Amino acid sequence: MQNRKIVPRKLAGFWELEPEKELLFETMLDKIKQVFLKYAFLPLDTPVMELSEILLAKSGGDIDKEIYRITKGSTDACLRYDFTVPLARYVAMNEGSLTFPFKRFQIGKVYRGERPQKGRYREFYQCDADIIGNEKLSMVADAECICLYKDIFASLGLKGVVEISSRKLLFSLVEDLGLKEKFNQIATILDKFDKIGEKEVSSLLQELDICEKATNSLIKFVSIKGDFENIEKSLNFVSKSTAFKEALEQLKQLDQFLKNMNAENSYTFNMGIIRGHNYYTGTVFEAYLDGKRNLGAVGGGGRYDDLASYFSERKLPGVGMSIGISRLFDICLQNNLLDSNFTAKNKLSIIPLGDTLNQCLTLCSQIRKEGIACDVMFEEKSFKSKLKDANRLGVPFVVIIGEDEVASGKFAVKNMETGEQKLLSKEELIKQMR
Amino acid sequence: MQNRKIVPRKLAGFWELEPEKELLFETMLDKIKQVFLKYAFLPLDTPVMELSEILLAKSGGDIDKEIYRITKGSTDACLRYDFTVPLARYVAMNEGSLTFPFKRFQIGKVYRGERPQKGRYREFYQCDADIIGNEKLSMVADAECICLYKDIFASLGLKGVVEISSRKLLFSLVEDLGLKEKFNQIATILDKFDKIGEKEVSSLLQELDICEKATNSLIKFVSIKGDFENIEKSLNFVSKSTAFKEALEQLKQLDQFLKNMNAENSYTFNMGIIRGHNYYTGTVFEAYLDGKRNLGAVGGGGRYDDLASYFSERKLPGVGMSIGISRLFDICLQNNLLDSNFTAKNKLSIIPLGDTLNQCLTLCSQIRKEGIACDVMFEEKSFKSKLKDANRLGVPFVVIIGEDEVASGKFAVKNMETGEQKLLSKEELIKQMR
Repeated sequence: MQNRKIVPRKLAGFWELEPEKELLFETMLDKIKQVFLKYAFLPLDTPVMELSEILLAKSGGDIDKEIYRITKGSTDACLRYDFTVPLARYVAMNEGSLTFPFKRFQIGKVYRGERPQKGRYREFYQCDADIIGNEKLSMVADAECICLYKDIFASLGLKGVVEISSRKLLFSLVEDLGLKEKFNQIATILDKFDKIGEKEVSSLLQELDICEKATNSLIKFVSIKGDFENIEKSLNFVSKSTAFKEALEQLKQLDQFLKNMNAENSYTFNMGIIRGHNYYTGTVFEAYLDGKRNLGAVGGGGRYDDLASYFSERKLPGVGMSIGISRLFDICLQNNLLDSNFTAKNKLSIIPLGDTLNQCLTLCSQIRKEGIACDVMFEEKSFKSKLKDANRLGVPFVVIIGEDEVASGKFAVKNMETGEQKLLSKEELIKQMR
Repeated sequence: MQNRKIVPRKLAGFWELEPEKELLFETMLDKIKQVFLKYAFLPLDTPVMELSEILLAKSGGDIDKEIYRITKGSTDACLRYDFTVPLARYVAMNEGSLTFPFKRFQIGKVYRGERPQKGRYREFYQCDADIIGNEKLSMVADAECICLYKDIFASLGLKGVVEISSRKLLFSLVEDLGLKEKFNQIATILDKFDKIGEKEVSSLLQELDICEKATNSLIKFVSIKGDFENIEKSLNFVSKSTAFKEALEQLKQLDQFLKNMNAENSYTFNMGIIRGHNYYTGTVFEAYLDGKRNLGAVGGGGRYDDLASYFSERKLPGVGMSIGISRLFDICLQNNLLDSNFTAKNKLSIIPLGDTLNQCLTLCSQIRKEGIACDVMFEEKSFKSKLKDANRLGVPFVVIIGEDEVASGKFAVKNMETGEQKLLSKEELIKQMR
């Protein structure tokens, strides 16, 4: 019986790179990881699935249409859609044995079953770093999270800036305007200011029965930008309540810490940064690539008062930063932002000519021993098609080994980019490949 | 209303390491990855889910009880249980654009919904490297896969050996005995030889209506061990059919390639290696840690004639090696096999004393700039409890910075292991941390 073939397909909207690009992407992940380690964050790798009762705690068990749910026997689980809930679960589970402040990062895949579209994936990489305190947490933690962007951008050869605001400051204004009960709705509207502009925001606020004077104050607030001194000056129209003074003092501290961490020029203040998640209660920030603000934020984060309130009686305030690395990678590729030296791909391919396969294998093993990526093009193909393959794979150097080369111990090394050819001994070859 | 707390739980049988161990594990993964890259394998990262029709092609759509299935809207998918099916799907999908032989590795999580038990996980890490040929594939590919173990063990500071056999050789014997139709059943029984011994295997073979003479031949076969010359000599009782001669010639080639790849002492032959999967059609092998053979194989693999037969008309022979890295990591931890220098964790914690937090932040950013992991213990805790925290986190060096230190520019650096304390300038400190 003839086998009926199944058409090989991948799930739509799932991230899968060709191997050459995957190598580039993993180089990117590794550079980011090295920055986290330098900042003394430790890695955490939670399961891809969490129990549904954990993952859906926030929604009281209601399942969001974007969530992938798996039931199997007595198991009722969901694929994680972010790293925040798994972190909350982990910290609550282990709060007795953790050393606080707990600094962890997580790089991995998350799942959102939305309709696939350009730049949006159903499975994609996310990268988070958070600092969790026990009962209290210094503003140094916020400064560390913001500072991470500077070093990560630098390690990737990118330039960017973090725009900082404070939800607490906004709250103090909203309270001052007598609109405390509507805070979350107001925040959601103001979060769109950048996208839809002043006029649209005004009309949305009016739909909430907010008077013109209050609307003007709110719009004035989200329009404030600049360095800390400028922010402080521009906020003179807000009543100096205790909450306001406290929030402003925290921003001032943050500004000072960042300066002392040599982070000048890598951040600014922008009261228009609100963030979509209402669990943020203090500092909020977003990171943008220089000259690419129109592409939207490549990362963001903020301070939350109580990470694990669903799981723990203990108050665990935290601050976290996040980068949408699948998206960042796409942006970098599309805009040629990745350094051409990004992957040190110093690879050598050996082409046997005649009956020299065994000698080629020996040379290859010696070169690999030196830590240099090397392979033997061992298949029975024509010399020409092997050179073509090497070219297609982007191999920078090729050595051709016939019986003469074996006898003389001198090998013709071809630079595939320039076409230049050199006769080198084994030792010279290894030296050059280094 | 008081929030009802949800007990924070992790799914049973899912892999989750505490951050210090996770760092160790990731160091292990990275060392393995570097070996793959040195051998010119490229990374592939397929989605965690595959369409059910793809993943269940082998079973004709029947769902195995171990498989996690996800249905959502029109999506019918399963979590991958290995990397072989995703590789087959990927190669078949992209066969027109790939350069053959296609060398890829994949490191990631796979899912098997079995009952959790000691040493068995439902979510665990697997690591595969495969070489796929177009129509044909040289035995060099088999040699490369076997050789990988040698370099991977060396990079992890482990010692091990690969035991090699050939299913083709076994097939030629079974054919010679007139038992061709029962090959898969015979292979499944012989695969247990190591575990259940000769007597049990004999009685299982007899249950298959295999005569005593044939049973003796089969048992004689799987008892053959040693170097290639020994194997060749010991197989004198098998008729020299064309299939037999071809299979023996391939093993001989493999032996020669391995010798030329400087792999002596890292492999041996053992005709008792059968492997459980019936898709293997040629070379099969298993890797064992020296002196830990009783713990079972830590990896294995072999040659399959046709990887993508469910998805493609093209013949795509391949050979692959695999390591159960979650299990290997467990074994290494339990047996103290990991080098104590495994992670270069040269970390420094700075403890501010008095009003020196800002100076500490500046020093910390300067040290990080040198690529050294460093943090400031910024929380308002007592000096004593900070030292305790540093100890618990395994921080090797601590610097205590009070106002005197800021004034003098000399810092007291404490070696947390020896208790020794040294006064160092910033430059000396950086030099020592390197």
